Amino acid sequence: MNLSDIYKPVQKDLNKVERSLEEITDAEFSLLAQLLAYTLKTGGKRVRPALTLLSGKFYVYEPALLVPMASAIELLHTATLVHDDIVDNSPVRRSRPTVSRAWGENSALLLGDYLFAKAGSLVAGTGNLRAIKLFSQTLMTISAGELKQTGVTFDTAKLRDYYFAWIGAKTACLFSTSTESGAILSQAPEEAIDAIRDYGHNLGMAFQIVDDVLDFVGEEDELGKPVGSDLREGTMTLPTILFVESYPEDKLIKNFFEKKETEDVSQAVVKIRDSHVIDDCLNLASEFCSKARRAAEKLPDNNARKCLIALADYIVERRK
Amino acid sequence: MNLSDIYKPVQKDLNKVERSLEEITDAEFSLLAQLLAYTLKTGGKRVRPALTLLSGKFYVYEPALLVPMASAIELLHTATLVHDDIVDNSPVRRSRPTVSRAWGENSALLLGDYLFAKAGSLVAGTGNLRAIKLFSQTLMTISAGELKQTGVTFDTAKLRDYYFAWIGAKTACLFSTSTESGAILSQAPEEAIDAIRDYGHNLGMAFQIVDDVLDFVGEEDELGKPVGSDLREGTMTLPTILFVESYPEDKLIKNFFEKKETEDVSQAVVKIRDSHVIDDCLNLASEFCSKARRAAEKLPDNNARKCLIALADYIVERRK
Repeated sequence: MNLSDIYKPVQKDLNKVERSLEEITDAEFSLLAQLLAYTLKTGGKRVRPALTLLSGKFYVYEPALLVPMASAIELLHTATLVHDDIVDNSPVRRSRPTVSRAWGENSALLLGDYLFAKAGSLVAGTGNLRAIKLFSQTLMTISAGELKQTGVTFDTAKLRDYYFAWIGAKTACLFSTSTESGAILSQAPEEAIDAIRDYGHNLGMAFQIVDDVLDFVGEEDELGKPVGSDLREGTMTLPTILFVESYPEDKLIKNFFEKKETEDVSQAVVKIRDSHVIDDCLNLASEFCSKARRAAEKLPDNNARKCLIALADYIVERRK
Repeated sequence: MNLSDIYKPVQKDLNKVERSLEEITDAEFSLLAQLLAYTLKTGGKRVRPALTLLSGKFYVYEPALLVPMASAIELLHTATLVHDDIVDNSPVRRSRPTVSRAWGENSALLLGDYLFAKAGSLVAGTGNLRAIKLFSQTLMTISAGELKQTGVTFDTAKLRDYYFAWIGAKTACLFSTSTESGAILSQAPEEAIDAIRDYGHNLGMAFQIVDDVLDFVGEEDELGKPVGSDLREGTMTLPTILFVESYPEDKLIKNFFEKKETEDVSQAVVKIRDSHVIDDCLNLASEFCSKARRAAEKLPDNNARKCLIALADYIVERRK
């Protein structure tokens, strides 16, 4: 199944999400309108809002609640990207300058705040207190997780634990909120909410690992940024971590992180890309996808369930 | 009446707000706990939470709702200060380095995000959808207002309008949310909610004007930052604007903003401080306070009303 097949049961409402994001760009003054259009009209995959809608397909499917929730999830995701690009000092995202590079860090900071608020206001509009609480908790987890990450030092024994905790907070948490909120807003029973949260968490873990692998093995025009960007920006992701674990004697990466010897970083990227750690990472991603699949199998058997399961397969096979 | 007399009817619950802010600093890891303690244990005046509590005193006073709401208001206020200090590149606040100066801009950015989320989560805990919506709307107004301000250029004819719109968004909006949320959570009727929102808005306008005056006429140890900090950081506040309006021929300030000639800024600060514009500003602040007083007079006559009216007098007479 490709992505458009997977989205099929909710495509009509996903188009409504797209329109509601477009409406948000009609802002009261031109700088804000320009910034919103730049960040929201991106042709992104919209995986997270699709997850919210698909997760709403098991009990009482209510587009009037699910569409704003799905839009809010995409806005929260966009806000965290805009702020992350400041924190990571990233020059490029999706083949274009980041907001902080194009308009400056101050505009990017305030745009992110505005997006958080707009997202919160859409969730408030659902009138569902449980979804509202889940949403604030998600932003707490994401920002605390990033803050924790800023204090990480080079301790090989703990790198893997740090990484899983970090992607749990930065990616898997929003995936599980995407699925859990869909279940909550469609009046799913508690066991179904547990299963779909579990599905979202594991799917998110797999998604981030694959993203971090693609950063090494992808092509620049598909990635929309240079190959090996994470490592070049000083971020240790799973491929680098597994490489350091496998080759503790190799000084290339250690020197880069400890002595900031940047001339060797391209060589390090090639070395990691051509090593067995890429397969090791994809195997770990597959394990998370299997867990996601098993969680989804606890849900009622319908077309949306087939799509969620297909999405778990798609995640590890995707190429951008 | 001094501030402790004004706070008297709600002092017990204001202490609960203080304790709830202290509890928030017991965070899951030390960097976050440290940052929260640094920003929340400041001995600030807590005007906004006091306003929420006092505004809750006219109908059904419910501390179980008002205390978390008041804490959330103070957290939102703190979050905006932390982000503002990044945007304005401010070195000092309340006689101490700002978070962005002491821990870096990245930590400050993520701390602000965390505080927004924690605030949202406390408001969600009230279970009151109207208060929740008002709260998201407030953050939208504040961040959009700051963003609008970044595009301001030197056009003398429009400066005053820009200034009032700007302080309306950055200060008066949170003041009116402080009072309006207190009214909402105490089941006030619509006319009372309108009156108390109006009171909060006008009080906030006066508060900010006085703040901007104190930046020129205050003492460094009372201000907790150098005299004339706004102007030195390139921010045009009301005293500067009225000065430029009164003396269009004076080139000192125009040169500073247009040619960035920084050597004359101390001279400009003295010139503004010793001119009639300081009294003109305070007269404008008094007008807003009179409006606030008239709005408060529409509320039921009780002790809290006396305190709100006394607070309007206090605002223009305060010295820090």
